[in-house]
Amino acid sequence: MAVNEPKKIIIDTDPGIDDAMAIFVALKSPEVEVIGLTTIYGNVYTTLATRNALHLLEFAGRTDIPVAEGSHVTITQGTKLRIADFVHGTDGLGNQNFPPPNGKPIEQSAAAFLVEQANLYPGKVTVVALGPLTNIALAIKLDPAFAKNIGQIVLLGGAFAVNGNVNPAAEANIFGDPDAADMVFTSGADVLAVGLNVTHQVVLTDADRDKLTKSNGKFAQYLCKILDVYFSYHHDAYSTKGVYLHDPTALLAAVNPSLLTYTEGVVRVQTSGITRGLTILYNKQKRFGEVTEWCDKPTAKVAVTVDAPTVVNLVMERLMDS
Amino acid sequence: MAVNEPKKIIIDTDPGIDDAMAIFVALKSPEVEVIGLTTIYGNVYTTLATRNALHLLEFAGRTDIPVAEGSHVTITQGTKLRIADFVHGTDGLGNQNFPPPNGKPIEQSAAAFLVEQANLYPGKVTVVALGPLTNIALAIKLDPAFAKNIGQIVLLGGAFAVNGNVNPAAEANIFGDPDAADMVFTSGADVLAVGLNVTHQVVLTDADRDKLTKSNGKFAQYLCKILDVYFSYHHDAYSTKGVYLHDPTALLAAVNPSLLTYTEGVVRVQTSGITRGLTILYNKQKRFGEVTEWCDKPTAKVAVTVDAPTVVNLVMERLMDS
Repeated sequence: MAVNEPKKIIIDTDPGIDDAMAIFVALKSPEVEVIGLTTIYGNVYTTLATRNALHLLEFAGRTDIPVAEGSHVTITQGTKLRIADFVHGTDGLGNQNFPPPNGKPIEQSAAAFLVEQANLYPGKVTVVALGPLTNIALAIKLDPAFAKNIGQIVLLGGAFAVNGNVNPAAEANIFGDPDAADMVFTSGADVLAVGLNVTHQVVLTDADRDKLTKSNGKFAQYLCKILDVYFSYHHDAYSTKGVYLHDPTALLAAVNPSLLTYTEGVVRVQTSGITRGLTILYNKQKRFGEVTEWCDKPTAKVAVTVDAPTVVNLVMERLMDS
Repeated sequence: MAVNEPKKIIIDTDPGIDDAMAIFVALKSPEVEVIGLTTIYGNVYTTLATRNALHLLEFAGRTDIPVAEGSHVTITQGTKLRIADFVHGTDGLGNQNFPPPNGKPIEQSAAAFLVEQANLYPGKVTVVALGPLTNIALAIKLDPAFAKNIGQIVLLGGAFAVNGNVNPAAEANIFGDPDAADMVFTSGADVLAVGLNVTHQVVLTDADRDKLTKSNGKFAQYLCKILDVYFSYHHDAYSTKGVYLHDPTALLAAVNPSLLTYTEGVVRVQTSGITRGLTILYNKQKRFGEVTEWCDKPTAKVAVTVDAPTVVNLVMERLMDS
């Protein structure tokens, strides 16, 4: 790859307030070229995620970017969906009742689009997965070579050695489809997980938001309109006067991996019981005499630390750029 | 309680090399009075645990202390036992083939003995639980007032936000009977858990062992004979030239709680799946909008830090005292 060739990324997304932020930051990041959005349930149902993805691209003037609609159900199909509209508003975008988009998703499913692009540019496409991992798991099922052909999967998900945000055990994206997540983590693809242990360090404060409001950047202006609901939720749930930048942090991990540090090991996901959706990384400090469920599985990278001030500044700068 | 009245303790134990160490330290601790041992499977099967408990008391010249035999099966009765003889030797005591004890366990079961003593001295008896928690759970089932009447349950168990020692998810004592452990943690008793996150900081080194060997203390002499197997296991599993003082640390948490610091919150145990035996503490940093399995349950205390040098010194001093 030439030094200045932007990295091709596909954002798998359930917009979502911080998804909108991540998408806008991506569109303003010269280091990456967004070659598609794929949609998934999570913050909203998939149908609304698709509508919001199209709307965000239309607002950005980037209708050249295709949107492929993803799965409406978990990979095992039997699970009731958990939709976090209480975090993002019933419309997923801060209850602003934006007009419906003019555009339509492409005919391909998200999984088919992911497989196609991975085959078209082997080793060159990064998926930034900001919702439950159903589409990625479906791509792995659809094409056994997907794990090898995809460049990297950077995912916002997991709570490594910290409490989750759905319950003390589980983070929302992994909880949304634990079976899919376990498939992705053990797929052998180059997986990089950015979990709550990292994103809870990256906070957009009230003061930052004031700066966004005063800026002329159109993305900053747009986001300030939709951020109210997100700030309220954080205040009620965490007693903070700021919001966690989950999705923008994962996006920036794809844009500039050196903003974070990583460990590597086998990650497994608990798929049932009271800790359903829990992620456990084997840190290799002990050699187990017994066979464990972590044996002989491919590893994943897991983010450990983040340069939070730089991440927040980058998000701010790119959103305020007009 | 008068200032100098020793705390009554019952040690629930599966001896076990570090169990032997904890029992000897207890017998040499003027702060506590050992009013009984109850036995459980874990490092060895229950029958052998009983034999070893009697043997250790006979070696110590303390046949006045009753031994009550505990459960031979998990509380749900269907689970295959995991016996850690590869850590402690097939006899549980470093493969020394000690002669069989002369004494016998009392007629009462461990659970019945625990209930009786808790009723006899309400609020005054501390159980130091060094194995799977079956006997304690059976005592809770046997007598609904047990959780209230028992003074405290100090248990060696769990791996809080760190990898386990059976597999990356689970610590051995909780893994041994996860259903019993979940009952104990949520029983409303004053529970204090000392987990691997703490005991992996408390290491008896090769140099410490040399000191024990040179001492005239009979307990030090005895232990040096049985420690070989335990050191070998640690070397193979952890590449360390020292051994973790799991059980003695939990014992000393009962003797002198100020050697550790604690947090408090609801602890639940995963009872099935690949993370069976995992302990998750809810740290209350988030108010969950949804009902979780951690809601409306009694809390437990969980050890967070330990004054490791002082714990090691105390163990050494008391074992070397002749």
